[in-house]
Amino acid sequence: MNNHASIPVGVLGASGYVGQELLRLLHGHPDATVAFATAESAAGEWVDGHELTKADDAPWQQAEIILSALPHGVSARYVNEARAGGKRTVDLSADFRLSPDAVYGLTEFTRPRLADAELVANPGCYPTAALLALIPLAQLGLIDPSREVIIDAASGVTGAGRNPKRELLFGEVAEDYRAYAIGNTHRHLAELKQSLSREGGFTGDLVFTPHLLPVKRGILETIHVPLTRVLDQSTAEGLYSATYDAEPCVQVMHGALPSLKDVVYRNRVAIGVAEVADVRRPRLTVIAAIDNLVKGAAGQAIQNMNVMLGLPETAGLAC
Amino acid sequence: MNNHASIPVGVLGASGYVGQELLRLLHGHPDATVAFATAESAAGEWVDGHELTKADDAPWQQAEIILSALPHGVSARYVNEARAGGKRTVDLSADFRLSPDAVYGLTEFTRPRLADAELVANPGCYPTAALLALIPLAQLGLIDPSREVIIDAASGVTGAGRNPKRELLFGEVAEDYRAYAIGNTHRHLAELKQSLSREGGFTGDLVFTPHLLPVKRGILETIHVPLTRVLDQSTAEGLYSATYDAEPCVQVMHGALPSLKDVVYRNRVAIGVAEVADVRRPRLTVIAAIDNLVKGAAGQAIQNMNVMLGLPETAGLAC
Amino acid sequence: MNNHASIPVGVLGASGYVGQELLRLLHGHPDATVAFATAESAAGEWVDGHELTKADDAPWQQAEIILSALPHGVSARYVNEARAGGKRTVDLSADFRLSPDAVYGLTEFTRPRLADAELVANPGCYPTAALLALIPLAQLGLIDPSREVIIDAASGVTGAGRNPKRELLFGEVAEDYRAYAIGNTHRHLAELKQSLSREGGFTGDLVFTPHLLPVKRGILETIHVPLTRVLDQSTAEGLYSATYDAEPCVQVMHGALPSLKDVVYRNRVAIGVAEVADVRRPRLTVIAAIDNLVKGAAGQAIQNMNVMLGLPETAGLAC
Amino acid sequence: MNNHASIPVGVLGASGYVGQELLRLLHGHPDATVAFATAESAAGEWVDGHELTKADDAPWQQAEIILSALPHGVSARYVNEARAGGKRTVDLSADFRLSPDAVYGLTEFTRPRLADAELVANPGCYPTAALLALIPLAQLGLIDPSREVIIDAASGVTGAGRNPKRELLFGEVAEDYRAYAIGNTHRHLAELKQSLSREGGFTGDLVFTPHLLPVKRGILETIHVPLTRVLDQSTAEGLYSATYDAEPCVQVMHGALPSLKDVVYRNRVAIGVAEVADVRRPRLTVIAAIDNLVKGAAGQAIQNMNVMLGLPETAGLAC
Repeated sequence: MNNHASIPVGVLGASGYVGQELLRLLHGHPDATVAFATAESAAGEWVDGHELTKADDAPWQQAEIILSALPHGVSARYVNEARAGGKRTVDLSADFRLSPDAVYGLTEFTRPRLADAELVANPGCYPTAALLALIPLAQLGLIDPSREVIIDAASGVTGAGRNPKRELLFGEVAEDYRAYAIGNTHRHLAELKQSLSREGGFTGDLVFTPHLLPVKRGILETIHVPLTRVLDQSTAEGLYSATYDAEPCVQVMHGALPSLKDVVYRNRVAIGVAEVADVRRPRLTVIAAIDNLVKGAAGQAIQNMNVMLGLPETAGLAC
Repeated sequence: MNNHASIPVGVLGASGYVGQELLRLLHGHPDATVAFATAESAAGEWVDGHELTKADDAPWQQAEIILSALPHGVSARYVNEARAGGKRTVDLSADFRLSPDAVYGLTEFTRPRLADAELVANPGCYPTAALLALIPLAQLGLIDPSREVIIDAASGVTGAGRNPKRELLFGEVAEDYRAYAIGNTHRHLAELKQSLSREGGFTGDLVFTPHLLPVKRGILETIHVPLTRVLDQSTAEGLYSATYDAEPCVQVMHGALPSLKDVVYRNRVAIGVAEVADVRRPRLTVIAAIDNLVKGAAGQAIQNMNVMLGLPETAGLAC
Repeated sequence: MNNHASIPVGVLGASGYVGQELLRLLHGHPDATVAFATAESAAGEWVDGHELTKADDAPWQQAEIILSALPHGVSARYVNEARAGGKRTVDLSADFRLSPDAVYGLTEFTRPRLADAELVANPGCYPTAALLALIPLAQLGLIDPSREVIIDAASGVTGAGRNPKRELLFGEVAEDYRAYAIGNTHRHLAELKQSLSREGGFTGDLVFTPHLLPVKRGILETIHVPLTRVLDQSTAEGLYSATYDAEPCVQVMHGALPSLKDVVYRNRVAIGVAEVADVRRPRLTVIAAIDNLVKGAAGQAIQNMNVMLGLPETAGLAC
Repeated sequence: MNNHASIPVGVLGASGYVGQELLRLLHGHPDATVAFATAESAAGEWVDGHELTKADDAPWQQAEIILSALPHGVSARYVNEARAGGKRTVDLSADFRLSPDAVYGLTEFTRPRLADAELVANPGCYPTAALLALIPLAQLGLIDPSREVIIDAASGVTGAGRNPKRELLFGEVAEDYRAYAIGNTHRHLAELKQSLSREGGFTGDLVFTPHLLPVKRGILETIHVPLTRVLDQSTAEGLYSATYDAEPCVQVMHGALPSLKDVVYRNRVAIGVAEVADVRRPRLTVIAAIDNLVKGAAGQAIQNMNVMLGLPETAGLAC
């Protein structure tokens, strides 16, 4: 179908939910093929037509680019090996998100720096949705820095990984719902603040509270934004539309709010807004939804890879 | 088991989720029996051993007290008939919650007025959890009125009633999650503000955002409270414990957060707190959970009925 | 991408779950486009980029082929109109499945008759899985006609349609499971017996019992087959492999059993088998799984359409 | 409330789902109290007001009776210790179900032997439902021994225990459904055959196939019974009613079929039947539903304990 050769991609950590999603998406990618896929305890198993090999046994030289879905803390070592071997890399772990060595891969805002990047740190799932919702307001100075931005986020359980833990059993999660890491103790906060400052210039306070939803996939964030001036719903929608006009992976909703079913299995953020009645100072509530495994992880990694390689940005992706 | 006669209770609107929960709880009540249970389109059906009759055919005179789980707008007419007939009534609809004719039945705070009440307006499910979480802080002047209190609430689908609607089908709700009535447009807001002012003296701004969870039962509210002074977690827990020390239906958690499974099928609110790190002004995050059908509706109605009748407050209730 | 013109397809009944799946699949079809999509009460709504029009207002002449996902009983009238207007049609309702006017579209077995068919009756979801599991055994005379074949089938709720009914509410279906239409009273039985006789020559007794699963998509059938001679697991797997060797949409499992997650969102039947220990006469248990909306409805309809039009059989389909 | 002293009960293995259910039920038992509750890795944790202690540290002498919810293989050792110490015991594991040393605790059929039993083997969850459905037919010689009885059973995930396993994660189980242990390889089969022979005199072939349902609690079994003579639905219902007339924990349905929601959180089996149309030889389909944790485990254990101790049989149980 393409007269250029398909690009061989190495996938590290292919047995978890994110790694499996990478394989699924690469499988349908018109210009890429899986050179190898690694796993440790699951080495030898077959996933989507690929036999998983131990990372130390993988034919690294056959890959033109490396996507790492290894766990935080483990990924850095292999990513550094890849870099030492001259391989361009997208790291889906948190290991390089705060590091000056990597370009932060929030594609819609850091696209120009991706083309030449050797190492891209793929954003966390929660920050992806929050940043795409907040940066457009921040860039225009619309967020009141004297009041806190409150972000209540709810994620499906695949966001917590595939290692067996009692608290993630069906018998515990079904029919339940709970907050965790409350009081601004979640790891993603630092990453979120860093990018909101860099891309949007906002340095006010954030309060970030994640919750565990009894669904497999999807993140929905309810973001309470104190405004410096009144924005009605239609004006706010217009502002988002203007910002994201040419973006293939952002859906701005008009007169409607996103729900998980608008975004699952898609490399898309969906954003909807409402002005807040019955309060003395101007406020906007923004709802942002993504699939945590796609735009929140594997999909955005491939979107970044496409930019790095000069491929069409949405190749292999349903946005 | 009791040497006094069992009290006959009339249940209006017994075919919906709240009505069925009333029958279930009354069935296990040591001092009460169901005198009649009404339904309109479901008249003639049997629920929990009771044949449902049309409200206009029910033997009203046989009941000593009436519990109405009729829909908002419909309930008022029948409740007024009951009052005209000299019957004491607990109305679970929203029809009298803002009316001076009724005592608001938030048992823990309005108990003294319930004993002689002719008409009790049972609180809405969302306000019940929010008020029990906020009033103790408000009463002590701890909530900063210059910043907004943000309440993100998530409810199971039985809160939306049992009438067939496409948006409530399993095929729509499973694996989904969404906000609704955002921007302070939910009916419960007025009720919440009224009681928070009356019982807690707080008249600052609230932002209330409900969400629909893919679970059958349960409400969890994540409440962001701007404080007038710093409260660490342990002090805040102590404050709640002091307030609710003698309350059988309030569980204050220490070093833990409530989840739905702590409260479903119980007439209990569970409350947990965390101070918020990394912000410039003092803040507390409070998590409150209830079963929307029990402490948020039928259970609290029976708790109120027990107080009205001089019965043990938790008779027939698992708290 | 293709230098031939895309084929315009008319979709009748596009607001239900099957109709929406047709739009989703046609949207990704390389050689087809949606000419129009109809709905009655939902006319005017937009689904997947198409405005739904009333069937009587649709530009029928613009379509080269018609796919009808109208309800049983309603579909026949419109399909007959389409035929009168010279349009080739795939009817996804039950209206023509027992009629000699239509070719039964069980693609893997009726493929030769599809190329010239004017009207194709798309198989029901339950029969699709059962027939693909049973025909290979029946054709070889391996099913003992003196004992009954027992089929216990479980379906996700989208199989019951999208019209609001109380019994399909999330509050009723979640955490529940039940049989329905037991005692051989389900409509699909006649269709199943007809095709098992025609394609496999089996005319013995069947017992078919459907169940409602608390999942959105997927059918799993547990089929108890009395055998005329002993077949061990590996021989049985080999037999299925031989039958389906060249079939792109049939997955024969070896040493494993299918579950719903092997098939959802795919136009695939997955089949696994086990011999039965500890019984006196030979028996095989066969497990067959499909996505009720894909191989059980919309996907198979497109597979059939592709054959009718001389397109690659799996164009637009993930098998 | 009782003028006799409450009976102290020791619970072994209190951290799993069955053990927790034992504590929940004993908590509401009018005539029993928890003397101690053991766990190994969870020792020191508090469940329902009881601190879990290691089994070797538990004050065995304080208990009048022991309920063991320890895992298969582990339970036997502690049960034998209890017996050596003179304690009467109900063992909920499989360790003694095939042993002549224990009375099999299918209360409705082995009640007379329970009163004096030193050791009761509590039935498995699947056999409980199947036996209560089949014994009444078997006792009357109504099951045709020349054809196989087919039992398709589906269980909620708490039946698989609370130890973390990948296959039991929410991310794997939600929206999935699958068979396991097919081909008559499940451990419960021997127990089922033993009791069906002993209590019902039936020694024909059984085919038993369990499935994993995406629900927390509940078992539904669809049982295909070949009959020696025709039984219409009403006659069959009458037969079950006659058998179970005086049984408080068996619900025979008339003109309806049980679903999980009829039985969860209750110590009840619900049974419904349908004759099978369109087959040449007489057949009955029987549907039986229980809560796997209650009538299938902890509830039946307490029912047995009550009989052993001469207490009212349903004390502490909602049937």
